[in-house]
Amino acid sequence: MFFTETRKLSLSNKRFTVTYKIFVNEEKALEVAKDICLEQTVEFPEEFLPVGPIKDFIVGRIEKFGQFSPECYIAEISYAIETVGRELTQLLNVVFGNISIKPNIKVERLSLNEDILEFFKGPRFGIDGLRKYLGIEKRPLLFTALKPMGLSNFALADLAYKFAFAGIDIIKDDHGLSDQEFCRFEERVVLCAEAVKKANKKTGLNCVYVPNITAPFHEIKMRAKLAKDAGAGGLLIAPGLVGFDTMRDIAEDNDIALPIFSHPSFQGSYVLTNSGISHFIMFGQLVRLAGADVTIYPNFGGRFSFTKDECKQIVEGAKTPMGNIKPIFPSPAGGMSIENIPDAIEIYGNDVIFLIGGGLFRKGPDIMENCRYFKSLVEKY
Amino acid sequence: MFFTETRKLSLSNKRFTVTYKIFVNEEKALEVAKDICLEQTVEFPEEFLPVGPIKDFIVGRIEKFGQFSPECYIAEISYAIETVGRELTQLLNVVFGNISIKPNIKVERLSLNEDILEFFKGPRFGIDGLRKYLGIEKRPLLFTALKPMGLSNFALADLAYKFAFAGIDIIKDDHGLSDQEFCRFEERVVLCAEAVKKANKKTGLNCVYVPNITAPFHEIKMRAKLAKDAGAGGLLIAPGLVGFDTMRDIAEDNDIALPIFSHPSFQGSYVLTNSGISHFIMFGQLVRLAGADVTIYPNFGGRFSFTKDECKQIVEGAKTPMGNIKPIFPSPAGGMSIENIPDAIEIYGNDVIFLIGGGLFRKGPDIMENCRYFKSLVEKY
Repeated sequence: MFFTETRKLSLSNKRFTVTYKIFVNEEKALEVAKDICLEQTVEFPEEFLPVGPIKDFIVGRIEKFGQFSPECYIAEISYAIETVGRELTQLLNVVFGNISIKPNIKVERLSLNEDILEFFKGPRFGIDGLRKYLGIEKRPLLFTALKPMGLSNFALADLAYKFAFAGIDIIKDDHGLSDQEFCRFEERVVLCAEAVKKANKKTGLNCVYVPNITAPFHEIKMRAKLAKDAGAGGLLIAPGLVGFDTMRDIAEDNDIALPIFSHPSFQGSYVLTNSGISHFIMFGQLVRLAGADVTIYPNFGGRFSFTKDECKQIVEGAKTPMGNIKPIFPSPAGGMSIENIPDAIEIYGNDVIFLIGGGLFRKGPDIMENCRYFKSLVEKY
Repeated sequence: MFFTETRKLSLSNKRFTVTYKIFVNEEKALEVAKDICLEQTVEFPEEFLPVGPIKDFIVGRIEKFGQFSPECYIAEISYAIETVGRELTQLLNVVFGNISIKPNIKVERLSLNEDILEFFKGPRFGIDGLRKYLGIEKRPLLFTALKPMGLSNFALADLAYKFAFAGIDIIKDDHGLSDQEFCRFEERVVLCAEAVKKANKKTGLNCVYVPNITAPFHEIKMRAKLAKDAGAGGLLIAPGLVGFDTMRDIAEDNDIALPIFSHPSFQGSYVLTNSGISHFIMFGQLVRLAGADVTIYPNFGGRFSFTKDECKQIVEGAKTPMGNIKPIFPSPAGGMSIENIPDAIEIYGNDVIFLIGGGLFRKGPDIMENCRYFKSLVEKY
């Protein structure tokens, strides 16, 4: 009655599924699930929808619904793959766009079929590719950061040299280093890449430098290219700051073709409460879809609040089968200290990148000795 | 001892201030505030920082600290303007990057001095500019959306014509319309802009069409340009999906120069709990810094959970003085029905854009009659 439609909507009947936890009582939970089906698609009063494929296929469909625990229900909702239109931005919009503004809904898991997954290339390297790239077959990898903010590029490069010389595998910019007056990006990247190269020549090792290219829209590609040209061995990006699709675009760019390290800055609010997105998706499935080869997150037991179970969920999300999308390295950080390494290997196994930043300075007054001790803890694996 | 520094760090001594609420007991609150100062800047153990300007100026500084309510403390923390490096991405990083991952911290207000604000152009139009652009001097503005997803572009354009003919001021794409097979972007924009133009010719009015250009990184600028060329009168962007800096870049692009409408999709998790960002910043200060002329958000009393007080905070954030950054229109939506209009005007005053989407269909079976009734409610203001 409201619409003058002349074309017949034709859809493939292929659907993907999203699992939501709904933290309300039984009476309301089913109502919330039905609301998600409308809100995430047509955003329109159900009674006024035209009869036919919009109502039957475009609107989300509850595939499963049940109790998970008292006051928590689980709904599996499927959507027509056509709603996503081949775009990561629109996939996120369908999965959690408007309902991000409704409390007590948490997206737990994406079950994306091949028809959706093939829109995305995912990580270029993944676990196997990054091991080959770095020439390290089996053991856990050693990762540290150049900081504190405020040091000159010369002092940062000196630190990079020491880290590389002492056997660290990957050295990144602190995520707080962007293009400030006191450490301009281009100069930093040239000096630090050079310092790491110099150390590699002496050690015969293959340490890589990973600058932070998190930057404004019009700058980020340029920084990726400057980094590549200067000899960087990977790129650090905070998708919470630049958008997930920005990371995806850089990861998929064949002119850049460097490993991507995803930093969790500005993403925390999504995972900390019952309103948001699970650790499994946010630091696992989603960063993989967006092309990261490594997902950095705060480890349990440190100065952040993630639990051991939440960290295990991240690892699961980083490695769970997802069609053509490769599994990636978890990189626990933020709460890592050298002393934790043996325990952490028990939990994470060998396919892990330990990121120890400030903690590396706590062991003793000689930073290179500290690095060597860090390395000694993983060499037997 | 750890660092070989040859250059003297020179800073301007100019600082900007961020107000945080900390939801813990008194014993822990000051500790959390001190932790924010380190975490958001050097992310380094305080005891190993080199003596001098890094410790004295780069590390955040607690300017005020006090109790707000039982179990809630307020800290005003200042940062050196140099930490931000002229970038919106890095401003967000300093304000809330890592501590987004720590629970019970909420960013309440940004107090940005002129030295920071001048890095950003802010909204091109703002309230006064948009009124002039639309030729509507004083009354509240009427805004609706083309939906439901699944209609063909022809049916959407037909709807656009009816809305425009019946006196709606601004017609946007539903935020779920991107570039799906059933409503490809380019065709949609051409047809809808054409339909609105045709209606304007008959009515003598100046209705504008605002397509949704939320899109992948490599596509969004192209869509903005296609929209401009097709005769669109504004652009809808969801910064939660594409990144705030992407919106800023498009807003500041002089080749595009269209009003920007910010949509809240995927942003909700930041504001819903005590871990995150205030409504005042998220839908007020921040979208202004990122160049939006209109901030769309779910109104109180509808199908979303924002309270009247939270909506008032958004309006305050949209209009609070911020140097060169213009005040912008609040656009309550998502819970708006025609019946609410008189009450809403009491609260919002005249400088408001009422966005009624699905609700516009509820009034009666003739959509054009419904639009005329909608208009009749604001014409006397």
